[in-house]
Amino acid sequence: MTRKLRLGMVGGGQGAFIGAVHRIAARLDDRFELVAGALSSDAARAQASAAEVGITRSYPDWREMARAEAARDDGIDAVAIVTPNHLHAPVATAFLEAGIHVICDKPLAISLAEAEALAKLAREKKKLFALTHTYSGYPMVRHARELVDAGELGDIRVVQVEYAQDWLAEPIENTGTNKQAGWRTDPAQSGPAGCLGDIGTHAYHLAAFVTGMLPKELSAEVHTFVPGRKLDDHVQVMLRYANGARGMLWASQVASGAENALRLRVYGTKAGLAFDQEYPNDLWFTPLGGASERLTRGRVKSAIAAHATRVPPGHPEGYLEAFAQLYLDAALQIEALDAGKPVPPESRLLTTVDDGVEGMRFIETVLRSSGMNAQYQEIGNG
Amino acid sequence: MTRKLRLGMVGGGQGAFIGAVHRIAARLDDRFELVAGALSSDAARAQASAAEVGITRSYPDWREMARAEAARDDGIDAVAIVTPNHLHAPVATAFLEAGIHVICDKPLAISLAEAEALAKLAREKKKLFALTHTYSGYPMVRHARELVDAGELGDIRVVQVEYAQDWLAEPIENTGTNKQAGWRTDPAQSGPAGCLGDIGTHAYHLAAFVTGMLPKELSAEVHTFVPGRKLDDHVQVMLRYANGARGMLWASQVASGAENALRLRVYGTKAGLAFDQEYPNDLWFTPLGGASERLTRGRVKSAIAAHATRVPPGHPEGYLEAFAQLYLDAALQIEALDAGKPVPPESRLLTTVDDGVEGMRFIETVLRSSGMNAQYQEIGNG
Amino acid sequence: MTRKLRLGMVGGGQGAFIGAVHRIAARLDDRFELVAGALSSDAARAQASAAEVGITRSYPDWREMARAEAARDDGIDAVAIVTPNHLHAPVATAFLEAGIHVICDKPLAISLAEAEALAKLAREKKKLFALTHTYSGYPMVRHARELVDAGELGDIRVVQVEYAQDWLAEPIENTGTNKQAGWRTDPAQSGPAGCLGDIGTHAYHLAAFVTGMLPKELSAEVHTFVPGRKLDDHVQVMLRYANGARGMLWASQVASGAENALRLRVYGTKAGLAFDQEYPNDLWFTPLGGASERLTRGRVKSAIAAHATRVPPGHPEGYLEAFAQLYLDAALQIEALDAGKPVPPESRLLTTVDDGVEGMRFIETVLRSSGMNAQYQEIGNG
Amino acid sequence: MTRKLRLGMVGGGQGAFIGAVHRIAARLDDRFELVAGALSSDAARAQASAAEVGITRSYPDWREMARAEAARDDGIDAVAIVTPNHLHAPVATAFLEAGIHVICDKPLAISLAEAEALAKLAREKKKLFALTHTYSGYPMVRHARELVDAGELGDIRVVQVEYAQDWLAEPIENTGTNKQAGWRTDPAQSGPAGCLGDIGTHAYHLAAFVTGMLPKELSAEVHTFVPGRKLDDHVQVMLRYANGARGMLWASQVASGAENALRLRVYGTKAGLAFDQEYPNDLWFTPLGGASERLTRGRVKSAIAAHATRVPPGHPEGYLEAFAQLYLDAALQIEALDAGKPVPPESRLLTTVDDGVEGMRFIETVLRSSGMNAQYQEIGNG
Repeated sequence: MTRKLRLGMVGGGQGAFIGAVHRIAARLDDRFELVAGALSSDAARAQASAAEVGITRSYPDWREMARAEAARDDGIDAVAIVTPNHLHAPVATAFLEAGIHVICDKPLAISLAEAEALAKLAREKKKLFALTHTYSGYPMVRHARELVDAGELGDIRVVQVEYAQDWLAEPIENTGTNKQAGWRTDPAQSGPAGCLGDIGTHAYHLAAFVTGMLPKELSAEVHTFVPGRKLDDHVQVMLRYANGARGMLWASQVASGAENALRLRVYGTKAGLAFDQEYPNDLWFTPLGGASERLTRGRVKSAIAAHATRVPPGHPEGYLEAFAQLYLDAALQIEALDAGKPVPPESRLLTTVDDGVEGMRFIETVLRSSGMNAQYQEIGNG
Repeated sequence: MTRKLRLGMVGGGQGAFIGAVHRIAARLDDRFELVAGALSSDAARAQASAAEVGITRSYPDWREMARAEAARDDGIDAVAIVTPNHLHAPVATAFLEAGIHVICDKPLAISLAEAEALAKLAREKKKLFALTHTYSGYPMVRHARELVDAGELGDIRVVQVEYAQDWLAEPIENTGTNKQAGWRTDPAQSGPAGCLGDIGTHAYHLAAFVTGMLPKELSAEVHTFVPGRKLDDHVQVMLRYANGARGMLWASQVASGAENALRLRVYGTKAGLAFDQEYPNDLWFTPLGGASERLTRGRVKSAIAAHATRVPPGHPEGYLEAFAQLYLDAALQIEALDAGKPVPPESRLLTTVDDGVEGMRFIETVLRSSGMNAQYQEIGNG
Repeated sequence: MTRKLRLGMVGGGQGAFIGAVHRIAARLDDRFELVAGALSSDAARAQASAAEVGITRSYPDWREMARAEAARDDGIDAVAIVTPNHLHAPVATAFLEAGIHVICDKPLAISLAEAEALAKLAREKKKLFALTHTYSGYPMVRHARELVDAGELGDIRVVQVEYAQDWLAEPIENTGTNKQAGWRTDPAQSGPAGCLGDIGTHAYHLAAFVTGMLPKELSAEVHTFVPGRKLDDHVQVMLRYANGARGMLWASQVASGAENALRLRVYGTKAGLAFDQEYPNDLWFTPLGGASERLTRGRVKSAIAAHATRVPPGHPEGYLEAFAQLYLDAALQIEALDAGKPVPPESRLLTTVDDGVEGMRFIETVLRSSGMNAQYQEIGNG
Repeated sequence: MTRKLRLGMVGGGQGAFIGAVHRIAARLDDRFELVAGALSSDAARAQASAAEVGITRSYPDWREMARAEAARDDGIDAVAIVTPNHLHAPVATAFLEAGIHVICDKPLAISLAEAEALAKLAREKKKLFALTHTYSGYPMVRHARELVDAGELGDIRVVQVEYAQDWLAEPIENTGTNKQAGWRTDPAQSGPAGCLGDIGTHAYHLAAFVTGMLPKELSAEVHTFVPGRKLDDHVQVMLRYANGARGMLWASQVASGAENALRLRVYGTKAGLAFDQEYPNDLWFTPLGGASERLTRGRVKSAIAAHATRVPPGHPEGYLEAFAQLYLDAALQIEALDAGKPVPPESRLLTTVDDGVEGMRFIETVLRSSGMNAQYQEIGNG
């Protein structure tokens, strides 16, 4: 076994959700050890949180952490950034400047300009910049992408993607006790997009990841249902692709009854497929005129799916394993980068800073279109 | 048992699909006997088709049929119009003028103007004008409407409706052997809308039927994927409602792998519901924060659902029973109208000519928006 | 169109369930007209019921009906027997003796001896004797049988069949208002088997119909959960087949939460299949090591399924259509028999009196085994 | 954060399946560090396997490991036993004798006598003895148990449990390359039960865990379908409970098309529930006469479920998380035992050596009944 990579974390202190997820994900495949952290902007809470999760090198400030870790012989190899959105770019910049690999939560930043600057910096520094679009870590999502790549769907015609939740159906951000709801509905911490940034970008990324296509223009509307809420809690979008395909995307955090219903359907000239995040061990594939097939990782011959799984078919994997897959791929890439070797092919599906740039471009185009009564707007991607 | 109503039929000869469905539906609850028909514009085929289905009074021409039946003491009480779309209005007009009740397939006409004229005429003549939006005949669809009416969903916020098929994914209208594909992709017979008129109107009606709301404006795009096809085979729409609700509708006949996937989801401030036409015995209801419930007609106390069913719960009903329900309700209303009595309350969910007018308004608004690069357009209903 | 067959009915008056089902089923494909009946053993109720359903020739007594109809030139071609079980044999005998075809509800009789006598008589009289095991009328059940016949499952190893309901979970027969519960739990009317005869025989028949195999021995236990109930309300059985296959069957009318959950799974050396009566438009087929396929009648090339359906795929069919299929096949066979022609091959899956004999043999063997503390008993079929 | 517990492992070298699962499970919640192992009976393989997984204290022999670790100040707190079945008892005995807590794979032993001796020893030594019946770690399984405990089902009447796989449908043990198939079909390593011991015991335990009831007698048959196989690959059982409930259990490793289909259904006088291991985030609950409810951990208020989960509802958890839950509960109990404190209540659902004894009693009773042509046998538990 090679040495475990040393991981630091910024954000993710007590009361946070995604920090704990990152820690389990990093640990699951035994490629990282968490050794340093600036878990909270509140120094006492940072210290307490660090003690709670067994981090010995606790920093009160992430700038100091970047400097100090860079200076140590046994400094961290990579940092996981799990702060609210507004800190993604400054923190990532500091660690990249310090020569430390970055694994960052999504959305990448709070503006496209920030995102593009980060991408430029990551390229210059030749450091890994992974963006944790978790859902691309599922084996059956990766297999779906492979089916598209292999032409099994033919030419893609229709993309339908959606992400429905209901946890913000009421103004829980006003209770003061829900830290998650608080920052995610606060423009100062979340940036200009609410539901759009939080889950709309996941839907957008999932569709792009599987189809291998980004739309070229969109017509969109964001909406806020809950009175007094400062950011959108619902978004709906129509999409046009360069190849003539059409699509629709919607995301909502007020869809009463929905827990975490991210679903993708893609229809091509030869077949269609469907994926439902709440049942991630299944992928549905239906040839034109044929029977729907429930594909599972045990029933497909897929190196790409096999690389992204740990247990035999019928033994369900879930969200944490998908997340862990991003960390596993990150480990493989970091080891290769540090050794000056080519990145292992099986790790290449890891989401990158460029995916994050596209996510921000999506956000800004949606907001622009929405501000113009949903007029179609060019997205301007590659 | 009261006398069976005498039914005539226009269209529905050999090679047709929906004619046979209407005949079974009319027969199922034993309230109609089919006695007359002009089943085809081809006289020989009309005669042969009539013999095949046991109709003794076969007419070569529907104008003649209207005149002759109106003149008989034992003339038909009602006519079922199951022709291609372009004949709906002229045929219906002739029979209404002859004082005969009308049960007509959807869409109502090939233009809004035609539709409005029909509605006006039906009102003047005080005759029944039922439009066969089949899916409103399902007991669980009717129960869904009742849940909304009763406020179980709270204020409606989000409407998602879709209708996906794949039978036109290839240019089968060019084979010359598929009568269905032939007329449904031919503007001369279908009018200006393809997929939009054929199934988009079903989706639109289902959403309106359940929510009790019509949108006030929409942004839409129709698209034709199959090269050479003369009408749209895909449509996507964003909807705005007067109460602030938002919605999306899409319909496609090129969605590879889909058979007849009409699905509706409605989210309100208190609960959400979901219906899938391919599994019509189930209705899913989820209170905000609560568990999803699989409602079946056996597990709800619902007079409205009970009126629309024939067999005990767990004994699945399907498309033909939903269709039969429209005929049953039509029979109840015809008997009341002819007796000068009020229409029985339990039959009041029967789709009307006014629903058909709204369907045509939807078609024209979608086409107008689509022609203007999907700019939002007022629908102008009620 | 050929002349409609004239149908009579014994049983099925007001308050009955299955009589109305038979009437719709007989009507659905337009091959029968109901012209005569002895709908109740109570003369006044018989008359009122007949008037309600439009029967002009109402008889107070089925013996008289058999005599009178046999004597008429326009007498009935066939009789539908929808009485409680204890009358099946005497009524069927009377009509067979009168030279009238018989369509009889299941179970065939209240003893094996009665059943065998009926089978002998039907053979002697060369009359149709159809037994309405409804579930064999579903297109996908017939397709399942075809898959087995064609060797697609390989050698069958395991058969799992079950039928769960909950409508008798409480002693509703004691309320005096539930006619169904009353006679079905009364040995004088139902014979010696309760749940076993009512739904256990359906499960047994479905397994035999699809696999083409009858077990050669069984170990069984019947049980009565509801205190004071006079017949069993739960049965469980282990099965051994001549080819070495093993099976299990259970049926319960106290399975809280179950509506009408008849499910069959068959596993062979090459593939497995599964059918759930509550979702009858789907058949699940899984090759060993392959993906599960959702077969629908639109996605299989199956003449046998096509013969048993009326509407396109995606337009769900249900229980009434399955029932109607038995009547359609019966009509085809009656016409052939009366014309002295061979029975049409596509109608040959119609359940026969011999199936009824096997059902009674199953009942008696289960009761014998149950009485011997579930010792294995030879069934003695074939 | 308290000190991580030091874990050793016996078995689980290269080619094993369950060893890796235990390692991930132990790591997931960060309560254990794996520091010692005797991963293989082959010394070289043991060494190589240890290196691969980062274990520094590798032993060629488990007896030596027990002695050496007991002697160290920093010796292991607990050992995970993941060998073939025949070694469970001797290895566990050695470590218990050495005063080391035991976490052991199931089935507990290869005979009831061995199992009872182990249980006695564990009690004497006052050490934890956890048995990894994984499926009891799922939050919704624990919630199911709580529903039963709380009387939500009323009196239990019917228990249906099954476990179907197809990976042994062909004689893959003869290929020599499948280590899993090799030992699991070898009586010398597996003991007298094949499918029965491997997965039948899981089904038996799951039913007992949820219902809180062990049956008092059973009628059973084991069967071997694959020619030449030395152990059973199929088992079917009928169960009687002391309270009058009835049950059935079947398990098969030749059920073509099944991956890992462990399913439990329980019906009581007030409600029924259903759980399917392949979709473990859902639990189905249906009140008598009411609608089926899809319970998820986000939609139930359940401290017991909350204790067994890591991520928000809608973020699916799977097999590894269920397994990790056993390790988490084991950690809680070990810490309490070592501190002389009472075991924390939330950890009390952890499976014990007594569950293992019941599993062995089940195996022996099934084999005895099967040898007597499935005659009912007393199980003799509690």
